[in-house]
Amino acid sequence: MAKDFVTRQENYSEWYNELVVRADLAENSSVRGCMVIKPYGYAIWEKMQHTLDTMFKETGHHNAYFPLFIPKSFFEKEAEHVEGFAKECAVVTHHRLAKSPDGKGLVPDPDARLEEELIVRPTSETIIWDTYRRWIKSYRDLPILCNQWANVVRWEMRTRMFLRTAEFLWQEGHTAHETSEQAEDESVKMMHVYADFAEKYMAVPVVRGVKTANERFAGAVNTYCIEAMMQDGKALQAGTSHFLGQNFAKAFDVKYLSRDNKLEYVWASSWGVSTRLMGALIMTHSDDNGLVLPPALAPLQVVLVPIFKTDEEKQMIDALADQLMTDLKAKNISIKYDDDAKTKPGWKFNEYEFKGVPVRVTLGARDLKEGKVEVFRRDTCEKDLRSTEGLAEHIEKLLKDIQQNLFDKAVKLRAEKTRNVDTWEDFKKEIEKGGFLMCHWDGTTETELKIKEETKATIRCIPIDAPQEEGKCIYTGKPSHQRVIFARNY
Amino acid sequence: MAKDFVTRQENYSEWYNELVVRADLAENSSVRGCMVIKPYGYAIWEKMQHTLDTMFKETGHHNAYFPLFIPKSFFEKEAEHVEGFAKECAVVTHHRLAKSPDGKGLVPDPDARLEEELIVRPTSETIIWDTYRRWIKSYRDLPILCNQWANVVRWEMRTRMFLRTAEFLWQEGHTAHETSEQAEDESVKMMHVYADFAEKYMAVPVVRGVKTANERFAGAVNTYCIEAMMQDGKALQAGTSHFLGQNFAKAFDVKYLSRDNKLEYVWASSWGVSTRLMGALIMTHSDDNGLVLPPALAPLQVVLVPIFKTDEEKQMIDALADQLMTDLKAKNISIKYDDDAKTKPGWKFNEYEFKGVPVRVTLGARDLKEGKVEVFRRDTCEKDLRSTEGLAEHIEKLLKDIQQNLFDKAVKLRAEKTRNVDTWEDFKKEIEKGGFLMCHWDGTTETELKIKEETKATIRCIPIDAPQEEGKCIYTGKPSHQRVIFARNY
Repeated sequence: MAKDFVTRQENYSEWYNELVVRADLAENSSVRGCMVIKPYGYAIWEKMQHTLDTMFKETGHHNAYFPLFIPKSFFEKEAEHVEGFAKECAVVTHHRLAKSPDGKGLVPDPDARLEEELIVRPTSETIIWDTYRRWIKSYRDLPILCNQWANVVRWEMRTRMFLRTAEFLWQEGHTAHETSEQAEDESVKMMHVYADFAEKYMAVPVVRGVKTANERFAGAVNTYCIEAMMQDGKALQAGTSHFLGQNFAKAFDVKYLSRDNKLEYVWASSWGVSTRLMGALIMTHSDDNGLVLPPALAPLQVVLVPIFKTDEEKQMIDALADQLMTDLKAKNISIKYDDDAKTKPGWKFNEYEFKGVPVRVTLGARDLKEGKVEVFRRDTCEKDLRSTEGLAEHIEKLLKDIQQNLFDKAVKLRAEKTRNVDTWEDFKKEIEKGGFLMCHWDGTTETELKIKEETKATIRCIPIDAPQEEGKCIYTGKPSHQRVIFARNY
Repeated sequence: MAKDFVTRQENYSEWYNELVVRADLAENSSVRGCMVIKPYGYAIWEKMQHTLDTMFKETGHHNAYFPLFIPKSFFEKEAEHVEGFAKECAVVTHHRLAKSPDGKGLVPDPDARLEEELIVRPTSETIIWDTYRRWIKSYRDLPILCNQWANVVRWEMRTRMFLRTAEFLWQEGHTAHETSEQAEDESVKMMHVYADFAEKYMAVPVVRGVKTANERFAGAVNTYCIEAMMQDGKALQAGTSHFLGQNFAKAFDVKYLSRDNKLEYVWASSWGVSTRLMGALIMTHSDDNGLVLPPALAPLQVVLVPIFKTDEEKQMIDALADQLMTDLKAKNISIKYDDDAKTKPGWKFNEYEFKGVPVRVTLGARDLKEGKVEVFRRDTCEKDLRSTEGLAEHIEKLLKDIQQNLFDKAVKLRAEKTRNVDTWEDFKKEIEKGGFLMCHWDGTTETELKIKEETKATIRCIPIDAPQEEGKCIYTGKPSHQRVIFARNY
């Protein structure tokens, strides 16, 4: 299949771009940096959304919706936040178009200039904390545990579908608490929720860690993150959760009457994952034959393809297909019987393989007469002739195996591409090979930036479960107590 | 309850505005015309979304996502559409903020002016048909049945929460077909889907009809709609479905190779409902004691409130509450046991009544000793002392009764406020009393506009099931074959 499809080996970057388009996941639009998410891609995103939303609700969160626009002055209120987010953004300056003076086309109406420019939200801390000021009077109003599913815009210069687009879809949780500890606990908890989602549903192993000061969210005291490794050995930040201290409460004057009857600033967290997860999902599992999807997030888990010559054969196949559909639907497995006469079995094989459908069952008249069907699993591309007896149970088990196998494979690859590096000479060589380099670092931003400048590698995170170990900084030789992860990243 | 709450009689408009805020549904934000949808309001919207989304999928539609921004020139391509939508809109002119020359604050960076302005979508026909041009080559690619859940912006001068806001949430379906008939059938089908949703879930009776040329969507050949009547007798357009002919296919050059091997322009429909439905829901059922919600869309359907003095009594109540929760959850009924010690039963009664929780069960120690509980239904505010025997079944039936009763009440009110009017003198008097006036009309935009100018009444729709009947136009006396609905509207 896909003979004209570039391999990962040949050009990983091109392989990804082509895969996204040819598997009908997304495409570039006529608006620079903005993509169209096509129905098949959106169906995967919907499954992600649904799963995450359930996990958020189970941890006590409620959804709400806040304005798309943020007054320019709001960004000026938090000193670090403005540096990070009020730079490359979409600025609304007018609220009307009018006929242009030459009568040709439309221009922003000079009489409809906004008194204050509005920014299309790049993230919503400011508008939300402006709102929380009205919601919070006393400790009785806390905690507030809100989440929002929304679109945001960051005017990126270089864009890639799902990984970095000007507009993207995401969720952003924004919570308000009485104490510093509660707010930080919340941000740690949500890092774990993200990690569970990535590992159990996406089958993407992640490292749980803390960002260095340099990589921290603009306005955060601490940024927790989950970091994944793609097949080419590059790191991908898959989700972040921020402990914001009292920074936004102070910027927006949000105080509460404490249990001790004192006015105190409120403590905050925020956390988000985006359609970037789609990029992580695609790049972790897919291969040179196209998309590979973990069954937990595949919009279609099983496809049935008939092969027959006579009407009589077709009837025999239909009967089995009906039975299988009933059995699998009862097990909550999504299934499609593709007996469309307009396309041939070979075309169908290619199509579903390229789109990453986890299991294909070929119902061939010849095999069926011997009570057999061919079961194809997309993760390994293995075919297996199976008895029709207990087929539904076999498929159910197979889907679980595939889910586990994809995770195990990704864990194995990550282990192979993760190693300790202890000298600067080695570092410079090793970083060219990709993967995670576990190194000692002296803890300064200065050193981190120098290493980035020389090698394009950044500290992806300080793993939360890394053992304490005495060592010397890879670059300065100064003492260090723990290894951190260096890598090049998406 | 709510002694300081204005009644519908006193001031219907103020009653609505206050209700929205005090029932924790939404509030105005710091951004002019944009609202914050609070968690309780959003939970109702989520139930609406979920139900509609299921109905769309059952009728063969898939979700997708298209860009927030639309290049200005796209609006210029469809002559009527530009008049309707490229007027009051949010215009993005810059993609960066920079420090202002005086060093104080931020200004749009003059070096980051966009070559072509981007409009925040007021509706997405243009960007979607620009996309469909790439998706459609032959009749085999048709139909395309896409829906998008999104935010849109229309710069309204006078805004009211849910009813008319600058930014609002909605879904927009956009379909592409081989023939005119298929596209028009689709738009009619979706009008019926909307009507079913309004009546079965929202318990809001609606008239299914066609808009006059004057009230038609800008760019449509025909606009189908569902029209509801609020308690004050004003009409509210609750959903529209447009047959777009080939207008957008021509504007964006979308042709397909037909079964006859000819290049033909594609036929289109689009259809949408928005957070405006929240306004319709609130205004149809609520009363002077606050919100009233139909059980099908209530985030919380049943609340249990304990009344007790001793720990022993509390234990007895807890046991019954546990049992009821188990029983009702098994019936998929959402239930909460509010035994929060910080608030008193009276406060709880008021709170849940104001928030429109359909059923409240008071578990009073005294009643319970006699095997009884008090069941309160929000729609009629009736209380009933019931045996604890078969209580779950009783509540399940009661929720169905409430759903039906709300619909019946709304149908009755609408019938009372709907009447035939046959003279212009009567019309001018009757329109002041509100409601739907069923009148003959000569079919011209001229007459429609004159009537609007003189009375502020518009033709809400030409009902699709109205009987053919000879008559004379209420205004010009010219012949007419069918009555249409005149009303003042939201």
